[in-house]
Amino acid sequence: MTKPEVLFFDVLGTVVDWRGSIAAEVSSFLARNNAAHIDAGALADAWVGRYDSSVEPIRRGLQSFATLDVVNLSNLEGTLEEFGLKISELPHAELVHLNQAWHRLKPWPDSVKGISNMKERFVVAPLSDGHTRLLVNMAKHGGLPWDTVIGADISRTYKPMPQAYLRACEVLGVKPHNAMLIAAHDYDLRAARECGFKTALVVRENARDPSKTGEPASNEDWDFSVGNLIELANILLAA
Amino acid sequence: MTKPEVLFFDVLGTVVDWRGSIAAEVSSFLARNNAAHIDAGALADAWVGRYDSSVEPIRRGLQSFATLDVVNLSNLEGTLEEFGLKISELPHAELVHLNQAWHRLKPWPDSVKGISNMKERFVVAPLSDGHTRLLVNMAKHGGLPWDTVIGADISRTYKPMPQAYLRACEVLGVKPHNAMLIAAHDYDLRAARECGFKTALVVRENARDPSKTGEPASNEDWDFSVGNLIELANILLAA
Repeated sequence: MTKPEVLFFDVLGTVVDWRGSIAAEVSSFLARNNAAHIDAGALADAWVGRYDSSVEPIRRGLQSFATLDVVNLSNLEGTLEEFGLKISELPHAELVHLNQAWHRLKPWPDSVKGISNMKERFVVAPLSDGHTRLLVNMAKHGGLPWDTVIGADISRTYKPMPQAYLRACEVLGVKPHNAMLIAAHDYDLRAARECGFKTALVVRENARDPSKTGEPASNEDWDFSVGNLIELANILLAA
Repeated sequence: MTKPEVLFFDVLGTVVDWRGSIAAEVSSFLARNNAAHIDAGALADAWVGRYDSSVEPIRRGLQSFATLDVVNLSNLEGTLEEFGLKISELPHAELVHLNQAWHRLKPWPDSVKGISNMKERFVVAPLSDGHTRLLVNMAKHGGLPWDTVIGADISRTYKPMPQAYLRACEVLGVKPHNAMLIAAHDYDLRAARECGFKTALVVRENARDPSKTGEPASNEDWDFSVGNLIELANILLAA
């Protein structure tokens, strides 16, 4: 295999623990707003459960691009109502603060070191549904050492549309066959491979996306399959 | 003054020593190609001297966007011919290697530390005529710790067109009055200020752009005027 020049990383689930981070912030939000009886993990799952269908019209070109800040806030409002809370009675600043939790997601324990090691040899960048500012804030918060950040606001679509992958390559001046996607989700790797990318699966506990049901277990032949990003760095740097 | 959220930096001349770096690479190119009798500094100045007029049709929307790699290579060929060298007799790989010198420009001695210090409190990003990949390569080469890199290929125009400044703000989700441009050239600061940016002049020896003649001495009232980036970091972090 020829060596890739650029390593692109899925972020939500692959680099950061979205579920642990969001459930913790939901929990403290519920406690502050007299709703500690609600299950924070269930509310977090229900919130993210609305994601996929809410961005589908953007993928299909039926709606103009909107950032995760916009999509997530709308889904949060619907989810809180579903769980019996009245949006009109909650302080707006509380909703905005909880929605901004997506800018503060915590890296998995191996992420900063793994990406730092890969950065010595390769260009490292996120390839995420997050927009540029969200990903920049998250990187500053968690110490993620990206070489650059190209958010979904640059391609103005969402994965797994080919344009999301191809536009990222275009901005970094790299051919898809000289790029690799590193991700914890098969649908993402499959779409990247269709575009010509090399692929590396990171097997993560707790990275399941509740908005994508019926995802089959990974048994495909990705270029690499690893347990964490330090392991991948060791393999790529030794190759 | 309200504090800025995002600090944008002009790069060529302000953060890196383009003239020293390019003159050194031109000198070794000339030595390798039996042309050591040519003055490397004069050739570097003549090369950059072609820059401004060659991107003017892009600024005015008369030509489609082309990256610095394309613009600089064409100008390099013209300059070498002007100095009496025959392009057709030079190895093409030599031309490409010299043209790539723009990806390897050296930071001024204060740049890495100054930007690192400012990164603790602010989002730091280049706002340059360089394209994303060139700026990423330069950052890796020189250790520039950008939070993200938004090249001219994102706005698809060149400074001082307002769109260059406004698109950078849009991508980082920041209003111009919450952004600051840090630059060594008045024309750049003036254009940013017209867009609503705060401004900081860095007085650099040897940052003069030979493609812009008749630039008056700086006597304008910028928000800050400093001798280097460590000094600016000290001021902004103390404020």
